[in-house]
Amino acid sequence: MPELRKDPVIGRWVIIATERSKRPDDFGSLEESPQSAENCPFCPGNESMTPPEILAYRNSGSKPDQPGWRLRVVSNKYPALRIEGQLNRRGDGMFDMMQGIGAHEVIIETTDHTKTLADLEKQNIEEILWAYRDRILDLKKDDRFRYVLIFKNQGRAAGASLSHSHSQLIATPIVPKRVTEELKGASEYYEYKERCVFCDMLTQELKERVRIIEENDDFAAIAPFASRFPFETWIIPKIHEAHFEEATKHEFTQLAGLLRSVMGKLKDTLKEPPYNFVIHTAPYVDDYSKEYHWHIEIMPKLTRVAGFEWGTGFYINPTPPEEATKFLNNVSSSS
Amino acid sequence: MPELRKDPVIGRWVIIATERSKRPDDFGSLEESPQSAENCPFCPGNESMTPPEILAYRNSGSKPDQPGWRLRVVSNKYPALRIEGQLNRRGDGMFDMMQGIGAHEVIIETTDHTKTLADLEKQNIEEILWAYRDRILDLKKDDRFRYVLIFKNQGRAAGASLSHSHSQLIATPIVPKRVTEELKGASEYYEYKERCVFCDMLTQELKERVRIIEENDDFAAIAPFASRFPFETWIIPKIHEAHFEEATKHEFTQLAGLLRSVMGKLKDTLKEPPYNFVIHTAPYVDDYSKEYHWHIEIMPKLTRVAGFEWGTGFYINPTPPEEATKFLNNVSSSS
Repeated sequence: MPELRKDPVIGRWVIIATERSKRPDDFGSLEESPQSAENCPFCPGNESMTPPEILAYRNSGSKPDQPGWRLRVVSNKYPALRIEGQLNRRGDGMFDMMQGIGAHEVIIETTDHTKTLADLEKQNIEEILWAYRDRILDLKKDDRFRYVLIFKNQGRAAGASLSHSHSQLIATPIVPKRVTEELKGASEYYEYKERCVFCDMLTQELKERVRIIEENDDFAAIAPFASRFPFETWIIPKIHEAHFEEATKHEFTQLAGLLRSVMGKLKDTLKEPPYNFVIHTAPYVDDYSKEYHWHIEIMPKLTRVAGFEWGTGFYINPTPPEEATKFLNNVSSSS
Repeated sequence: MPELRKDPVIGRWVIIATERSKRPDDFGSLEESPQSAENCPFCPGNESMTPPEILAYRNSGSKPDQPGWRLRVVSNKYPALRIEGQLNRRGDGMFDMMQGIGAHEVIIETTDHTKTLADLEKQNIEEILWAYRDRILDLKKDDRFRYVLIFKNQGRAAGASLSHSHSQLIATPIVPKRVTEELKGASEYYEYKERCVFCDMLTQELKERVRIIEENDDFAAIAPFASRFPFETWIIPKIHEAHFEEATKHEFTQLAGLLRSVMGKLKDTLKEPPYNFVIHTAPYVDDYSKEYHWHIEIMPKLTRVAGFEWGTGFYINPTPPEEATKFLNNVSSSS
C-alpha cells in the first residue's frame, strides 16, 4: 500500500510508493522509443490491455470493454494511490502519515493513436470535458476524498509514458499544496477587498489587452502577468464560479472551442511542445464559492532550467508573457 | 533590465527576462552536444572568456584572470538579475513588480574540466564552501538584498548548460518562496514546542537510524521522511545554527568530507545522476536564529514525472527513503 507522508517543516504531503519501489537500476535513460499503435493499450481492439472501463462514451450497440467507444475512462494500471482501504491517519514520533488511499484514473481521449488535443474535433474535446465532470461528480460521493486533480502530460519531457492522447485524474484525501496556497491567497484578497482576485485579474487583463491570447463569450485565455514558464497560458471563465464541475453546457461548448484553438496556437508556434495542463478547482470540503475561481493552467515545457526552480520555488522565465502573447497571435489559429 | 513580478494570487515572485527574451525558435532540442575543454570558458587559459574574477583562490605569484587559480568566482555572463540600479518597487493596477536587481555569480569549482564534485579532493571541496561563505558575507553588505541563494546544477537534465563543474549564486531583493515556507513552518513549530523542528527531526532520525545515509562529528546526511524525489538527500548540521556562513572551520572541514562521501555514494549507486543541490540558509533580514536551521538539499533528477508536480506541488516518489538509504549504504563510499 502506498503511503502519504507529510513534511514536518512545510506541511507538504508526498505519495511514497512502498510496493513496486524503484531500485537504482530502474532509472534508465530518460529517453524511450515511441510506441506503435499495435501494442498501445489505449487503441481500439486492445481494450483487454487496460483495467475494465469505469466510464465510456460509446456508439449505440457497442459493448463495454470492446471497440465502439469514442472516449474511455479506466483505472490506472499502475496507480499512485489505491482505492481500497481506510485512511488510517497516524504518527511516528514527529512524523505524520496515512495510507495512500485514492483513485487514479486515465481518460483515453480519442481512438486515434496519433492525434493530439490540438488535432481533435471540438465535439471530441467537449466530450473529454464532460468525462472530467462526470468522474468528479461520481468521486465526490466518496467521503474519504477531499480533492480531484485532473491533469494531462503531453510528450515525454512533460512526463507522459504513453504517447496516445490521454489525461489523468487523481482523487486524494488531502488538498494539493499549490491549491491550498491559491485558496489562502484568494481568501486573503477576498477578506481585504470583498472581491475575487481572479475576477479582478481578468478585468484588468481584458482592459489592458497585452496578455490576452484569445477570448470568447465565456472564457479568456491569458498569459499570466507573473508567468513561471515561457508561453504559460491560463484559461479562466469570465463568470465567477469556484467549481469546474458546475460549469454550464454552454460553457463546456465554449471551453472546448477555446481549448482547441489555444492548443493549436501552441502547437503551431512552438512545434508540438511537451506540456502539462492542470485544472485548478475548489475542493469538495468547505465553501470557497465566493473567493475561489476555477481555471486551467497550461505549462509548455520548453526549458530545462527547472531542477533548481523546484528546490527553491524561484522561477526564471526567459520569455515575457506580453511577448509570448504576440508570438501566439501572429499565427493563425487552426480552428 | 529584467523584472521581478509578483503573482497576485499566491504571492510568488518570478524573474522575467525582458532583454534577451527567448523567441519560439530559441527553444530547440533539450539535448546538446557535450563541450570540449578547448572552448570551455571555465578551463585554465580561457580566463578571458569570462567576466573579470570577483574572488579567486590562487597559488602564490599568479595574477588575476590568469592561470594559477584553484577556484574562481566570476559574474554570470548571462545574468538573470543585474547588479546596477535601484529596486523601484511599483504597481500596475493590481500587479506588483520591481526592477530585477541582484547578483548572479558563478563559482568555478576546479581547474579540471572532467571532474565532478564526487571526484574532487576533500580540500578542494572545503575551498568551495569557503568561497560560498566569502561571497555571502560580501553580498550581505549590500542592503538592497535579502537573500543569497547558492545552488548547483550537475548534468543537462538538471539544467546545467556547461559541463565543467561549477555552482551558482543569486542574491535577491526578495526571499525565495520555498525558504519563506520553511521559515514559516519552522516558526510555527517553534512557537508551539519552543524547539527547532530540524533539531527534533535530526534527533528522531539519529535514534531510529533507518534514514541516516552517513554522519560524522558535525553533520548527518539523511533521506528525508517525506522525500519528494528518489534518493533525495539532506545534509544537516548537528549543532543548531540558522546561517550557513556562521559555520566554524571545523564544521566546514567536516562538511567537505561528508559532501564528498555522499556525492560518491550517489555517483556509485546511480551512475553519475544529474542533480541539483541548494543551500537553505536564513535570510539576512529579521532574526530567525532560534527557529531556523540551515541545511543542504540534494535532489537527484532521475524521473521525468515532474512537470505535473510543478503545477500542483504534489509529488509522487517511487523510491521510499528507507530503501534509498539501504541502496546508498550497500556501496562502499569512494572516500
